[in-house]
Amino acid sequence: MVIVMQEGATDEQIQHVIDRIVASGFDVHRSTGATHTVLGAVGVHRDFDHRDFELLEGVREVIRITQPFKLASRAFKPQGTIVDLGRGVSVGGHEIAVAAGPCSVESADQIQAVAEAVSKSGARILRAGAFKPRTSPYAFQGEKGLKLMRDAADKYQLFVVSEVMDPSQIQMMGGYVDIFQVGARNMQNYFLLRALGEVQKPVLLKRGMSATIEELLLSAEYILSGGNYNVVLCERGIRTFETYLRNTLDIAAIPVIKKLSHLPVIADPSHGTGRRDKVAPMARAAVAAGADGLLIEVHNDPDRALSDGAQSLTPGEFSQLMSELRIIAPAVNRHLA
Amino acid sequence: MVIVMQEGATDEQIQHVIDRIVASGFDVHRSTGATHTVLGAVGVHRDFDHRDFELLEGVREVIRITQPFKLASRAFKPQGTIVDLGRGVSVGGHEIAVAAGPCSVESADQIQAVAEAVSKSGARILRAGAFKPRTSPYAFQGEKGLKLMRDAADKYQLFVVSEVMDPSQIQMMGGYVDIFQVGARNMQNYFLLRALGEVQKPVLLKRGMSATIEELLLSAEYILSGGNYNVVLCERGIRTFETYLRNTLDIAAIPVIKKLSHLPVIADPSHGTGRRDKVAPMARAAVAAGADGLLIEVHNDPDRALSDGAQSLTPGEFSQLMSELRIIAPAVNRHLA
Amino acid sequence: MVIVMQEGATDEQIQHVIDRIVASGFDVHRSTGATHTVLGAVGVHRDFDHRDFELLEGVREVIRITQPFKLASRAFKPQGTIVDLGRGVSVGGHEIAVAAGPCSVESADQIQAVAEAVSKSGARILRAGAFKPRTSPYAFQGEKGLKLMRDAADKYQLFVVSEVMDPSQIQMMGGYVDIFQVGARNMQNYFLLRALGEVQKPVLLKRGMSATIEELLLSAEYILSGGNYNVVLCERGIRTFETYLRNTLDIAAIPVIKKLSHLPVIADPSHGTGRRDKVAPMARAAVAAGADGLLIEVHNDPDRALSDGAQSLTPGEFSQLMSELRIIAPAVNRHLA
Amino acid sequence: MVIVMQEGATDEQIQHVIDRIVASGFDVHRSTGATHTVLGAVGVHRDFDHRDFELLEGVREVIRITQPFKLASRAFKPQGTIVDLGRGVSVGGHEIAVAAGPCSVESADQIQAVAEAVSKSGARILRAGAFKPRTSPYAFQGEKGLKLMRDAADKYQLFVVSEVMDPSQIQMMGGYVDIFQVGARNMQNYFLLRALGEVQKPVLLKRGMSATIEELLLSAEYILSGGNYNVVLCERGIRTFETYLRNTLDIAAIPVIKKLSHLPVIADPSHGTGRRDKVAPMARAAVAAGADGLLIEVHNDPDRALSDGAQSLTPGEFSQLMSELRIIAPAVNRHLA
Repeated sequence: MVIVMQEGATDEQIQHVIDRIVASGFDVHRSTGATHTVLGAVGVHRDFDHRDFELLEGVREVIRITQPFKLASRAFKPQGTIVDLGRGVSVGGHEIAVAAGPCSVESADQIQAVAEAVSKSGARILRAGAFKPRTSPYAFQGEKGLKLMRDAADKYQLFVVSEVMDPSQIQMMGGYVDIFQVGARNMQNYFLLRALGEVQKPVLLKRGMSATIEELLLSAEYILSGGNYNVVLCERGIRTFETYLRNTLDIAAIPVIKKLSHLPVIADPSHGTGRRDKVAPMARAAVAAGADGLLIEVHNDPDRALSDGAQSLTPGEFSQLMSELRIIAPAVNRHLA
Repeated sequence: MVIVMQEGATDEQIQHVIDRIVASGFDVHRSTGATHTVLGAVGVHRDFDHRDFELLEGVREVIRITQPFKLASRAFKPQGTIVDLGRGVSVGGHEIAVAAGPCSVESADQIQAVAEAVSKSGARILRAGAFKPRTSPYAFQGEKGLKLMRDAADKYQLFVVSEVMDPSQIQMMGGYVDIFQVGARNMQNYFLLRALGEVQKPVLLKRGMSATIEELLLSAEYILSGGNYNVVLCERGIRTFETYLRNTLDIAAIPVIKKLSHLPVIADPSHGTGRRDKVAPMARAAVAAGADGLLIEVHNDPDRALSDGAQSLTPGEFSQLMSELRIIAPAVNRHLA
Repeated sequence: MVIVMQEGATDEQIQHVIDRIVASGFDVHRSTGATHTVLGAVGVHRDFDHRDFELLEGVREVIRITQPFKLASRAFKPQGTIVDLGRGVSVGGHEIAVAAGPCSVESADQIQAVAEAVSKSGARILRAGAFKPRTSPYAFQGEKGLKLMRDAADKYQLFVVSEVMDPSQIQMMGGYVDIFQVGARNMQNYFLLRALGEVQKPVLLKRGMSATIEELLLSAEYILSGGNYNVVLCERGIRTFETYLRNTLDIAAIPVIKKLSHLPVIADPSHGTGRRDKVAPMARAAVAAGADGLLIEVHNDPDRALSDGAQSLTPGEFSQLMSELRIIAPAVNRHLA
Repeated sequence: MVIVMQEGATDEQIQHVIDRIVASGFDVHRSTGATHTVLGAVGVHRDFDHRDFELLEGVREVIRITQPFKLASRAFKPQGTIVDLGRGVSVGGHEIAVAAGPCSVESADQIQAVAEAVSKSGARILRAGAFKPRTSPYAFQGEKGLKLMRDAADKYQLFVVSEVMDPSQIQMMGGYVDIFQVGARNMQNYFLLRALGEVQKPVLLKRGMSATIEELLLSAEYILSGGNYNVVLCERGIRTFETYLRNTLDIAAIPVIKKLSHLPVIADPSHGTGRRDKVAPMARAAVAAGADGLLIEVHNDPDRALSDGAQSLTPGEFSQLMSELRIIAPAVNRHLA
């Protein structure tokens, strides 16, 4: 922590701040400049509230130095994490990992048809929801939907990712999914993050709509500190004043996260734009910016989808997008299946 | 739903949109202007995704007409809801309701001291947290903290509000609290909202940091539609580009909500600013703008508070603030205890 | 400037940064903590780009210490500036200064009628626009409008504030206005700010819609550094994700600015909300939060106003608001005429 | 304009609104649904303030139908504008147009060195500033800088783009530049836009930091309506709550603008990120999303640049980026020189 005193702060004020720093267990370095006195507090106190010092007389500004995340930082693991899914498929490796599928499992036929189509186009992971977030976790297909998804995925050699919304669902879902997805609204649900820190399977953590990059990394830290190191981050759009599209997909977050953290980062242009015709441009942009993968909604018949049809690609559109991505990938030293 | 066709949309495009509207179960009104054809779709379909129409050829814009909340709207109940707590105390009535107390229950002595102080100054409700949100719900004092709060409240004729974070806590907490508080991070936790729709006690629902006013009312609708009509809304700051303070307290949301909805609305200047020296000005502003009440952090010894001391008023500062509010209240035809 | 090195930064990286700091003319203080090395650069370099250091190898973060504004800071002039308009009227003194009037001068009768009404209710300053910002500065009434405003103001002992949009207008306008207003869109028009630094009359500087508080103070610094110390700041709403009203009036900016700067600060609830029915609540909130004054649109016949009728109060509504403000003012140790 | 009445609006209220619509010169279509009455106002009134109707009794919402821009809309010119610079170079055609160069002209040697380097790597346009925006327009090199830029550009067959800040500069600058650039802070400087509508040379219009896409198109409309149809739009980052980088480059604005308007759109990743190491990823993302070109800061010696060195690429980094863009371009059916 660095404390900048106001111009004209009195000796008494400065001494009072120093006393408070020492009382909090820090060592103090005092640096007296031409206009400002700057106090450096050295020591490690993670649960420390720097605002307490902002309010002291004569203090102009308090600057936190210790980054609030450690296990998630690039400094902790410079070489970059590769989340290995098995059978040579991973997220964070040389191949760009694409997860595709419908918003929700609607029927055996539907999920099979989508799985077949996305698999043919090069997706490695099948994505779909088995619970409707706005209703009871037990109202929708639930376990039955997960089983249909698992069967379809197995038939086409795909891995399965699906959203978990409550710690109570983890054990059952663990029988069907390869990756647990945490939705944007749950990014700061610490009960859920803590529970996922104790499982062995990878976690796909979506950035909250109003979460800073630092807050996303803090949430990842929660999972990592529980002992689960297989975390994939996902940019899915932030809320800004621009409302033409549902959200503003923060493409720059991709290279920023790649620098700050060793964790893989993917993008979700379907939720990030909310409109089918904007998914392909933003998927291409994410890969060109260095994303390790994509999460894309694909439906065999979007016009009749039970949910989110407006943001789902048809299998043909998805296939076309994958062809475009294959052209782009070498520009970032990657390839696609 | 109103669909505005592009200038130059062809007859085929228009007819295709009409067919889709009819197939979705709406009646259609067609209005042909000099430059635009506008199609009105009449009917009630709450689960309808208007984006499906935005993507059709020739469509420029789709406008939702039906407000997504009904029970929470002022039109549904023009006279305004008064949440009655008993013993002549209510939220939404002529008296401005002030809830005050520490961030968290720390000890019997602490909560008693604060309860006595805020009660003397005119607060009617004791607020405090009994669970630490970032850790396990069972790690902190939990039920023991609630009991201490209840005892202190009873001794000074105060009502109790405390945050509930998970449906599993409702039954136990119901034995101690008079109002269940839903925190900003849980504003869209539909499991929790649904569960609170089934209890009899009032719910204090905080606006999420990036939630629009409409989304706040939608979340209230969730509770109301479960049968619990005693909902109090709370403005506690939104996230904007201005970062000098932790959040931007959206004071204008108070009169906006009062117009759109019959539910009482209060403000939380402690969390909305994050700094003790900004709490009083914003509390005064909220009351002057028409708030039905306030939620204010007060600690008997903020410098030694276990949490959020930086945003807690001392009992003396709180007493001073209440005196100022007593001056302001008559300007909005209200009074304070 | 404080430079925080990454955990694990090498001695070579640290030495390279030190060399660059020294080459830039700073002295260096090195502080080696358990995990981080922190380098303090001491010296004064206003035109310095701290991003140059952010990009050096091994650097985690660079923190600017020197506040970019000096003349506008409270430290520079602790006692608070009072902008004296003459005849006992000032902005920043004990009396809350209210400027009121129509969006634009429409006719001699209109401006006389409004001047009479607002004067009776206690306004001290007449506000109106004489140029339409979206068209040529010479298309609208221009000087003729200013003359009508001056005449009406003189008749009712009011001072005149009107917006200047280009340095070329300053000389002519100086013959009619008592305060030059700089609009939100021109807050960073450095040509205009520089020119206004050289005049003797007070300047009312509006915060840009996406300007931080610090940027507003920087713009004020521009005027002050030219030698004109009579600057009044004005909060008029920022752009956020909440779009129910035109802007989000940042009421908390008022006490924040009062702490950071000695300059008076007023609020414009008419432009900050864009709707007549929200002007009074937000005007009351601004005064309760400590504003030194208000800028309010009043029109004798809003339904027929040539511009901004929707956000203009009627004389009756304005009179009612002033009565409410008279109740509130003592709560902040102020009074109204 | 469509006016949605509140549920329960009375016949008197509805009739009053109808009378006001008719009095404003519109025709009215009335549509009575099960819960709402909806009134359609047909006619063309560009200077109309729809807020006037929002405030009438019984009105819930007023929706503007007529798009506020016409000449800039894709409907007006479906095939897309190609801004022809001569010698086979254009913006909006099959080749992606890259403008590159230093923040400001520093010397003949510097601008020559940069011009040579960017020309070799495939840039077609030389960009540089000849005026320092924060100081007097006449303080910096001004015309001398423009002449140096012109000479360097001619030597390497480049076109010249430079920022114009005031109408008074247009005539002089017209002797040196091929494209007038309007900076983000001037996007709504209507004096300047109007003046540029009357010149023959193309205008590069940058999006303001807090401007919506619609507002950007409205500003373009201003220039187009003056008779200058050669307008190129530029996304350069918006202000959001995420402050790790200077701005949030809104990549999705590129495909959105391409759909709404026929005008070419380019991106400025240098100003949009403010950091050299983020320029290449965001430049690649912009091209992958469909941008017609790029504006990139390149300096022969960024560490010694007089301004914006931190966001300038070295010639080597620029050359590497151009190679990557050549790989990506075919994915969007484009090519690079």
